[in-house]
Amino acid sequence: MNKEITSREIDYSQWYNDLIIKGGMADYSAVRGCMIIKPYGFALWENMQGVLDKKFKETGHQNAYFPLFVPKSLFEAEETNAEGFAKECAVVTHYRLKSDPDKKGKLIVDPEAKLEEELVVRPTSEAIIWNTYKGWIQSYRDLPILINQWANVVRWEMRTRLFLRTAEFLWQEGHTAHATEQEAIDEAKKMLHVYADFVENYMALPVIRGIKSPNERFAGAVETFCIEALMQDGKALQAGTSHFLGQNFAKAFDVKFSDNNNKLDYVWATSWGVSTRLIGALVMAHGDDDGLVMPPKIAPIQVVIVPIFKGEDQLATISQKVNTEIIPALTALGIRVKFDDDATARPGWKFAEYEKKGVPVRMALGARDLENNVIEVARRDTKEKQSYPLENIANTVADLLEEIQKNLFGRSLKYREEHITNADTWDEFVNLLDTKAGFIAAHWDGTPETEEKIKELSKATIRCIPLDNKLEEGNCILTGKPSKQRVLFARAY
Amino acid sequence: MNKEITSREIDYSQWYNDLIIKGGMADYSAVRGCMIIKPYGFALWENMQGVLDKKFKETGHQNAYFPLFVPKSLFEAEETNAEGFAKECAVVTHYRLKSDPDKKGKLIVDPEAKLEEELVVRPTSEAIIWNTYKGWIQSYRDLPILINQWANVVRWEMRTRLFLRTAEFLWQEGHTAHATEQEAIDEAKKMLHVYADFVENYMALPVIRGIKSPNERFAGAVETFCIEALMQDGKALQAGTSHFLGQNFAKAFDVKFSDNNNKLDYVWATSWGVSTRLIGALVMAHGDDDGLVMPPKIAPIQVVIVPIFKGEDQLATISQKVNTEIIPALTALGIRVKFDDDATARPGWKFAEYEKKGVPVRMALGARDLENNVIEVARRDTKEKQSYPLENIANTVADLLEEIQKNLFGRSLKYREEHITNADTWDEFVNLLDTKAGFIAAHWDGTPETEEKIKELSKATIRCIPLDNKLEEGNCILTGKPSKQRVLFARAY
Ligand SMILES: [Zn+2]
Ligand SMILES: [Zn+2]
Repeated sequence: MNKEITSREIDYSQWYNDLIIKGGMADYSAVRGCMIIKPYGFALWENMQGVLDKKFKETGHQNAYFPLFVPKSLFEAEETNAEGFAKECAVVTHYRLKSDPDKKGKLIVDPEAKLEEELVVRPTSEAIIWNTYKGWIQSYRDLPILINQWANVVRWEMRTRLFLRTAEFLWQEGHTAHATEQEAIDEAKKMLHVYADFVENYMALPVIRGIKSPNERFAGAVETFCIEALMQDGKALQAGTSHFLGQNFAKAFDVKFSDNNNKLDYVWATSWGVSTRLIGALVMAHGDDDGLVMPPKIAPIQVVIVPIFKGEDQLATISQKVNTEIIPALTALGIRVKFDDDATARPGWKFAEYEKKGVPVRMALGARDLENNVIEVARRDTKEKQSYPLENIANTVADLLEEIQKNLFGRSLKYREEHITNADTWDEFVNLLDTKAGFIAAHWDGTPETEEKIKELSKATIRCIPLDNKLEEGNCILTGKPSKQRVLFARAY
Repeated sequence: MNKEITSREIDYSQWYNDLIIKGGMADYSAVRGCMIIKPYGFALWENMQGVLDKKFKETGHQNAYFPLFVPKSLFEAEETNAEGFAKECAVVTHYRLKSDPDKKGKLIVDPEAKLEEELVVRPTSEAIIWNTYKGWIQSYRDLPILINQWANVVRWEMRTRLFLRTAEFLWQEGHTAHATEQEAIDEAKKMLHVYADFVENYMALPVIRGIKSPNERFAGAVETFCIEALMQDGKALQAGTSHFLGQNFAKAFDVKFSDNNNKLDYVWATSWGVSTRLIGALVMAHGDDDGLVMPPKIAPIQVVIVPIFKGEDQLATISQKVNTEIIPALTALGIRVKFDDDATARPGWKFAEYEKKGVPVRMALGARDLENNVIEVARRDTKEKQSYPLENIANTVADLLEEIQKNLFGRSLKYREEHITNADTWDEFVNLLDTKAGFIAAHWDGTPETEEKIKELSKATIRCIPLDNKLEEGNCILTGKPSKQRVLFARAY
């Protein structure tokens, strides 16, 4: 156990923060609720962006960039959306500071530089984008529009948490426009599957694909599709959402197109997004009491090599081998490797450091290993250590990285499978939440009122109605009214 | 000549806007001074980012992300910097909107949600970053810090222009911290050369590397290095800057480190940036009266193939050849190619469209060409057309792309060389500015007062003192006072 890190048993919440801060992923900032993403955390985000961006482009999307600011009159145009975000948005009211006449060297807001119309810092970009699409769309020939944007957004959350909930965060938001309802629904579903594939195959985190209940729907959407993951404390985390927006934004911004019979109709829309919140999910899903555990496919460093040496001569011999043979062989297979030859730090310190950072594979090479043509290889996920022949070591490591990726997914999946439990009565439901947690599959009468009441009483929300949900007669755990299917409840981040 | 585009002769400024709007690079937005970067323009920016990001990483830098907002108290800490940006910054004063009691469905700023301390939307990030570095730096072992950030920034400019001067723009900003003055100066110069290499070798635009005069220096810098390019109307454009910040920010934020003798000293700093403004430079430097002209190395589309056909059968035959042979051969060489097989648009319309978009190479393939095993290839830069054998066409095109890249650089360089002119008297100076324009090499007495006066009288500024400037005795064109070197003046964007 790493002494710098609080164990999960003692304080789960502190453990999470320790992993992020001590693992060098992020830092607190001087701005309330805003964080600094440090190079190691940002390298992870870049790897995630790289994979997602490629998937977006392969599915026909192009990137573009829209303004940070939304004039208030546009912001309020789609009323449901506006209501959903009005309570937590940063508002620009002035465009100049001036010298404080009372305090030398200090500045005050210049009251003469008040904006005629306030600008909202985008909490999401539907308004500014649909106001723009109005000018781009006349006929069915202009459709579909398939655009994605990588951007920062701001939501003035009252309680914030590193990566999971910050006032400013980084994300991507897809905004598409279609000629038919079905095409828009298909797009929303397609992007949900793109997200699910990414989170499962790259982040090694199994997700449930589902539909949100009306209470949990995105403000302004007709249907919200989501992927839900389970964290180690049994709480759920929404990892991504994809919205079918119907014609709501087209109507709010008067965006019509003429179809091939010259008939005018409103345009159909989707939007979908994932954010740096995914990094919080990754930390909570895979980390342990020694630090972060990075899934190999997106790990900033996949392999670290630590030399074990006495004196400069031994270091030189080891470095020679590492730099001219081992690193080139690993790099040739596309493996991201770091050689930590810092002579001022001890190997034990380095071992703990890279464990904390969750580097999937650590190799240690000493003078005697070199003589025997072997190298010691340690897995971050299982902590197993084994000596391997130096010959063909790159392929050995490549296989091991794949195995680690699979193992991380496998153990998350096992945990998730063990933590989906049926509850048939209210007592069972509440008891499960307090003891075992995880997803609880229970009947619900389908009304927003009951959903709200359950949330009030238990702090659990409906995470989703799974896409492939099986129909089954039953009675609502709260009201006893008839129900046709179980839905998944959980306490959530 | 393209009828949609105003010619340079008639209205240079309108020509520039036409290229951007009609070329599909960007669009105006509903937010004052903010633009929308459309997919074609953003693809160009992504290519530029890709090259620069690789260069930054090769020179040892890592990416990170710092908050969008700067609390006013941090913003004002470095006084020169604060003064320089105070007059043009967007200020967040509130964090909530609420329903307007007087107008149903409308929102107003909630007066009860006033921030205790106003937040400035970053116009540049020195303040927030140096406040952070304070927590990261204790000893010389923590140095250097070599960080870059890709971000949006906001400067509330009164007169805005697509790409060249917008209220919000995208850029990268490097912020480095060093133990010694010399190391910081070397870093600032190194990054200037990285910029110059990029602009010359990828954007095909020759630049002069120089030092800014005190009046044109970045607010808070000790020395500003810059690269200056010349546009087709003879006006200069600052394409990138790299600042040696001395210990100004370390002092403002109290960032000290202990050296290896345990002696405390303030940290030395640099910052450097290029922005989407570079896209404006590219448009102005290479475009012609038919539209944009993209340098092949960063062109979103390097080659477009237009089929010339009558009827579906011919299109099918041509498409077969293009999709199974030509495109795979081009793609194998890393060439970005588009096949425009839209059967509803005429070839002539497509030709004009891709000319407008500045695609470097256009290939047209008809049924008779196919029989003869040839293809017609047109260069965007010279408008030359030539028939080439289909055999080995990918290599032919690859060579042609290189030749176009060289030709664009060569003709810009020739123009630049022809437009650096010596002026030895005030009359000559003013006359040159009004007739020939370009850079004017003239003596200056070295005082900020004279520099300011020259600017007032002529609208020309000192663009830079070239890095390799030759010393030469002379007399200031305005005051007649002695001078040791000519400096470069120009009217500028
Ligand atoms: Zn359990
Ligand atoms: Zn000329």
